[in-house]
This record gives sequence, C-alpha cells and structure tokens, in this order.
Amino acid sequence: MLDLEDGVFMDQVEELVEGKRWAQLRDMLLLLEPADIALILDKLPEDRLPLLYRLLPKETAAEVFVEMDPDVQELLIKTFSDTELKEVLDELYVDDTVDLIEEMPASVVKRILKHTDPETRKSVNEILKYPEDSAGSIMTTEFVDLKRDMTVEDAFKRIRRTGIDKETINICYVTDPSRHLLGLVSIRTLLLAEEDEAIEDIMETNVIFATTLEDKEDVAQQLSKYDFLAMPVVDKESRLVGIVTIDDAIDVMEEEATEDFEIMAAITPTDKPYLRTGVWETVKSRIPWLMLLMLSATFTGIVINSFEDSLARCSVLIGFIPMLMGTGGNSGNQSSVAVIRGLSLNEISFSDLLEVVWKESRVAVVCGVLLACGNFVKLLVVDRGLMQNTEVTPLVALVICLTLVCTVFCAKVVGCMLPLLAEKIGLDPAVMAAPFISTIVDVLSLVIYFAFATALLGL
Amino acid sequence: MLDLEDGVFMDQVEELVEGKRWAQLRDMLLLLEPADIALILDKLPEDRLPLLYRLLPKETAAEVFVEMDPDVQELLIKTFSDTELKEVLDELYVDDTVDLIEEMPASVVKRILKHTDPETRKSVNEILKYPEDSAGSIMTTEFVDLKRDMTVEDAFKRIRRTGIDKETINICYVTDPSRHLLGLVSIRTLLLAEEDEAIEDIMETNVIFATTLEDKEDVAQQLSKYDFLAMPVVDKESRLVGIVTIDDAIDVMEEEATEDFEIMAAITPTDKPYLRTGVWETVKSRIPWLMLLMLSATFTGIVINSFEDSLARCSVLIGFIPMLMGTGGNSGNQSSVAVIRGLSLNEISFSDLLEVVWKESRVAVVCGVLLACGNFVKLLVVDRGLMQNTEVTPLVALVICLTLVCTVFCAKVVGCMLPLLAEKIGLDPAVMAAPFISTIVDVLSLVIYFAFATALLGL
Repeated sequence: MLDLEDGVFMDQVEELVEGKRWAQLRDMLLLLEPADIALILDKLPEDRLPLLYRLLPKETAAEVFVEMDPDVQELLIKTFSDTELKEVLDELYVDDTVDLIEEMPASVVKRILKHTDPETRKSVNEILKYPEDSAGSIMTTEFVDLKRDMTVEDAFKRIRRTGIDKETINICYVTDPSRHLLGLVSIRTLLLAEEDEAIEDIMETNVIFATTLEDKEDVAQQLSKYDFLAMPVVDKESRLVGIVTIDDAIDVMEEEATEDFEIMAAITPTDKPYLRTGVWETVKSRIPWLMLLMLSATFTGIVINSFEDSLARCSVLIGFIPMLMGTGGNSGNQSSVAVIRGLSLNEISFSDLLEVVWKESRVAVVCGVLLACGNFVKLLVVDRGLMQNTEVTPLVALVICLTLVCTVFCAKVVGCMLPLLAEKIGLDPAVMAAPFISTIVDVLSLVIYFAFATALLGL
Repeated sequence: MLDLEDGVFMDQVEELVEGKRWAQLRDMLLLLEPADIALILDKLPEDRLPLLYRLLPKETAAEVFVEMDPDVQELLIKTFSDTELKEVLDELYVDDTVDLIEEMPASVVKRILKHTDPETRKSVNEILKYPEDSAGSIMTTEFVDLKRDMTVEDAFKRIRRTGIDKETINICYVTDPSRHLLGLVSIRTLLLAEEDEAIEDIMETNVIFATTLEDKEDVAQQLSKYDFLAMPVVDKESRLVGIVTIDDAIDVMEEEATEDFEIMAAITPTDKPYLRTGVWETVKSRIPWLMLLMLSATFTGIVINSFEDSLARCSVLIGFIPMLMGTGGNSGNQSSVAVIRGLSLNEISFSDLLEVVWKESRVAVVCGVLLACGNFVKLLVVDRGLMQNTEVTPLVALVICLTLVCTVFCAKVVGCMLPLLAEKIGLDPAVMAAPFISTIVDVLSLVIYFAFATALLGL
C-alpha cells in the first residue's frame, strides 16, 4: 500500500523532477490510482504542477483532475489551453462537471460552460437547478436506459454501444417512450438470462426510487439500507431523470457525519479539510458559537450572584459547583448524543418520544443513585477523612448527593427530549449536543443545588 | 416511499393477520424490499412471526432473514425444522453466515454449523479465525475468479455458470494456479471487449488490495477513497482469499462513526440500536465514565478550596467561574473534535502535529481576544451598568478577560494535541473529546483565574 504520509515517495518525485526524468516519473505515477496521483499533484509547487499533469495520458488525466482539490483544479484550468480544457471536460461525468462548476469562481465557470458540449451543458444546467441538499443535485444523468420490448441481446448491444460513457452499467433502467420508470435489470440478471428473453419478462418492476427534491441524506441512507449500487431519481412527473450512485452516496454520508460532529462541537460546518482551512475561516466557523455560549453563561452568573451571601456563609459549597455542573453536563450529553445518532441512522423518530423519555428516566435514576452513592463515600472518606476538611459534614454531603440525583435526572430527560423536539420543528438535532445542553444543565444544577442547600442547611 | 413509522402499514398487516387473509398478506409483503419486510417482521408479536415468515418464497425468505434483528433470528431458528434451517443456510452468502454465527448463542451455532454444507463450513471457519476488527473478518469468500489465459468468451461462460452464487460479479479477479492475485477485470471491460481477447490482455494488473489482518476501518476508507465496489483481500502468502464489498464497507463506516460519537460523549460503544438496548445495558455503558469524570472533578474542588478565603473576600469572582470553565471547555472541544474527525478521515496524521498546533495557536489568539473584548463590553454594560453590580469594577473585568484569553489559548492547544498524541500511542483519539478535555481545561482555567486575581486584585 502506498503511504504518501511518510514523505519518501514525494522525495522520489522531487528527485525525478529535478533530474527532468519525465518518462520515469510518468511510469511511476501510472502505477498509482488516480486518487493517489491527485494527492501527489496537490502537494506539488504551483510551477511544476501543469508540467507533471501534462505527462499523464488523457483519460487518466481526467480521472486525476476530478480527485484534486478545488484550488489546484482552478490553478490548472487557468494554465489549460482551450483544447486541453475541452479534452478534460469531454472525459468528465456530468455529475463531476457539476461539482467542478459549483466550486469554481464565475470567470472559470463561464469558460468551462463554453467548452462543454451542448448536450452535457443541458444536463449540467438541469442538475444545477436543484437545491443544494436535494437528490437532484448529486445525481448523474448518465445511466443505461433500456426499453421493455428489447431482448437481452438488444440490451447487450445497447450497453456495448453506449456503456463506455455511463457512470455505471451494473444496473440498467427500463423506461417507456415518455421516460417513465418501468423497472430495472442488473447486469447479473442480464448475463444469467437467455439471449432471446424480453427485458419486460426479466426486469424487476417493484423499484425503490427517489424524487429529485428529496433530501440527499435520506437517499444515501436508503442506498445503504437496501445495499443498492445506485438509486433511480424521478422528477415530479415520475420521469426518470438520473441516478445516484453508491460512491456519491458514501460521500454524502461522510459529509453529514462530519457536519454532525462539527455542529455537536459548536462549530459552523465547512466542507473544507482541516488543514486546508485558513485561520480566519476557522475563527469565523467557531467564534459565533463561543460568543453565544459565553454570553448565555450570564444566567449561571445571575443564579450564583443571587446566592452570594449564603455561599459566603457556607463557602465549602463553592468547591463542588464544577463537579455538579460537569456531571450534569456529561449525563445530558450522553443522552442527547445517543438520541442524535439514533435519529440520523433512522433508528428513532419523534413518535418514539415517550419510549425514549421513559427509558432515559430509568437510566437516569440508576445512574444518579450510583453516582450519589459513589460521591457520598468519596466525600466522607477523601474530603472529610483524608483531607481533614471538617466543613464537609454528612449534611453537606447529603445536599451534594441529592443534587446529583436530581441534576442527572433532569439532564438526561432534557438531553433526550431536545434533539427529538429539534427534529420535529425542522432544526438539526445535532445542535442539541454538549455545548447547548451543558448551558441549560449548568443553570438547572445550580438552582437544584441552592434549593437543597437552603432547605437542608438553613442558609 | 414506504413509511413504516406512521403505523398505518403495520395496522394493515395486523388486520390481514386477524382475518387470516394469507394470500393477500403475502402479495402485500412481496411488494417490499427485503430490508423493509424484515422491519415489519421484527415488530410482529413472537407467536405470529414464524407463520408470516413461512409465507415468503424461499429466496426472499433468506434475504429477509439476513436483515432481521439477531433476537428475532434466534427466535425463528428455534422454530425451524432441520430442513427449513438448511434451506435458509443454503441461500445465505458466506459472510452473512459468519455474521449470524457471531451473534447466536453456542447451542444455536452448533445447530447452524451442522446444517451448513461442508465447503461453506470450511469458509466460515476460515473467516471466523480472523481478529474482530480485521479485513478478514468482514470479507466474503464468494467472488468470481478467472484465469489469465481464458478468453472473454470463457470468462462469460464461467460467470454464467458460477455467478449466481457470488456476492458480486461486477468485478472479477484473475489468479494463477496457486491462487496469487494477478489482476482484475470489471464486467464493463468484459462487455466492451471482443469475445476472443485474452483476459491477460484486458485485465488491470495494478491492483490495490488489502491483507487479511489489516484494520477493517482502513479498508473501508480505501474503498471510499478509490470509489471501488469491492476490494480483494490476500493472505500472508499473497493468495487471494476473499473480497470486501462496498455494502459491508459502508456498514463498517457507519459503525465506526457511531462508535466515535459514543466515545466522544463518554459512552462505552455498543453495537445495538438505541431502542433495543435495555436500561441496565445502557447504564453499564454510561456509568463508568460518569463516575470517573465525577471523581476527577476532585481536582477543581481542591483548587477552589485552596482559594476559598480569597473568594470569600471578593465573592463577585465566584459568579464567573462557570462561564470561564464553559468557554474553555467549548474552545478545547472545538479543536479536539476538528482534529479527531480529520484523523478518522485520514486528512491529518501525527506528522502534522506542528502545523496543527501552529494553526490552533493563531486561531486561539484571535478567538480569545474577540471573546475577551465581547465579555469586557458585556461586563461593563450589562453587569455594571444595567444590573448595577458595583462589585464588577474595570479591574475585575480585566482579570476575567485576561483569564479568557489565556484559557482559550491553553484549551485549544491542549485540545488539538491530545487526540494526535492518543493516536500516536495507539489509543482511540475520540477519547480526547469534550468530557475529558473539559476536565483538564476546568482545572487550567481555575488556576489561571486565581493567578490573575491574586496578581491584579491583590487578594
């Protein structure tokens, strides 16, 4: 396996470039997969890039081009002659052309569209019409379509004639003259059938499809659920307009997972890899949430201030505030993350609200009691015993432990409900993870703490 | 699209069962994909399950069986006659049989192995030998293998003869007599080639493969990176022993993402869906971390206690502790999650440590200064101005804001370094997310806070 990270390979490339040993360099690159060649080209200094790129044979060049970083693609396009640009564009699949156009600045887009052949340009414009998160926006229009009255032999002829330009030939779609989807046949079915059988006799008619405006995440989840290699996409008039292939579905799933991770860590999602994001861009994606969460901590401040005099009288209580807030936050976060993940894997839906709350309540009681017991022992043995802190009386320990039980309970119930409610009102449930939950739980735990302290210690 | 969640469909199923309208029920089920039929059967009461399952035609029944929950599979197997069990097992792919065996209790496994044909049993035992997280454990041994001197016509004959039992025919592998991997041909290449061409002339010889002991997560990442539909797996002697197909790779990727989410939320990963995990199981996966994190909060307690007298003298400082700890925790979590995700997408490696720290330091300075400015204004306008809290002097505000800058800096640097160090020493970087980072940052922020307070306020 090629390990680009160790740098040895890059050193070799550098050496061959220095020595102008182009033939050898080309042979070395051609041993690699396009995705790996792209990684190498991405790392080259700007002035060497066009040179090395031109060493690649036309078809490989296009495959490599698709895998490169947008910045590098832009750089390359600027050095391309019109003929070179046209050559690359002719080799691209429609959906890759769309991706390219979406990433490039306006001037480059204009040049790309000018050198795209009219039919592709039509498809590209078609796809660009669909909203960003829709199935339509990630589909390709290049699929094999068959007619119901074809024989298996006809089908193979058609695949041989047109298949080279299609993104996949593993699944072929059967349409009627007005392009309505009638069924599908896999290449396996075709191969195992007799040559004179009619397509309509062997096709699967009970086809799961997506509509152009469906959420691309749902479509990706379904491809995964049904183990499909591709999913047909139909428009409002039920006409087959494209397919979403499994490789694009995987990209969507990875992007969505990354987005969830980022949102749950209070980061505004970006689709750039970590090391390619500049300092300002990173700050912009992080500062709004930090600022918001910081300012919302005003509430914890208010609660503490209103209790300042009592705290001054029984100052031992202050030392346990971080522990109570931390444990509450962690408890709530556990529940919210479990529910958020369940939601995004379609294992849970809003209708499960009661079942989820009932389960979390029981979990919360058990966790709360166990934590309280653990802490009670620790308070009396470590704080009062070992550290000789006489202020930690059994009554103070009781206040702390009762607070723990109630805080953990509230935290877990709030933590499991908020993501479900967010989903219901159309927000991303991932927003309801640690940072947000903790802010609420912080206030809750303080209020509970001071209530018990007032009642039991008579402050 | 079928929406099982709305319950209407389940009600219809119930109704047909009540009315014993089996033929109609069967026709209704057969309109669905196996994965959806499995969802319905999973929800049926135990006594009805075997009845409905037996309505399905043999081949569909096996496909449905694979998609069901392990508990339900176990239940069904117990009601199967030996002949029925054998019928299902004959239809399963080897890797599905392995999955089944891994989930079932010993007595059921014994019965399964007894009714598996000897050849499959051999393959199953082969796969079961590999460690849990290895490529070998998720591969299937059913692939199409061709010889280099075959013609395209021979290849098609072989595919037609043996392809029905293979998990995929889209990619065929070329091996020599001692089973060494020589190359691969896609079905597309075969279809576009002339019938009398030799396989060795059209095969791709530059094949990316995995070894049986490689981490399954890495293999899944590579399938995604290279847009492959399957990846060949070779043993220590470079013999082709199996393939990992894209659907299994997707499952691995989803499992790993779920695991990361869970670890990052201080939950011990389980591979059961949320609603299927019992209360005790859930408690067991959550309580160890909660307990550990709770007890580690002892350190924040110690820091606060050692500063108790000073705090009593300037009690206004207490109210800002939650805000400082929260902001520090959130800042650190942002960096650690960004790095953890980068690591699991292979965008970052340990060798990038310096670059990552340099980037985070600059981000931290900008974020820290912006937050400090925001907070300074808020302290003077809201706390001192609106809320008339005269204790919030400009000097107190300065202490708080200087603490913010330093805390955010330390938090971000610690947050980005810990996941990289964890990766380096072979720990899961996901452990270094919010709960763990916050515990460290809590202590750091308090120490910084009290240091500034002592220096500037002369406490």
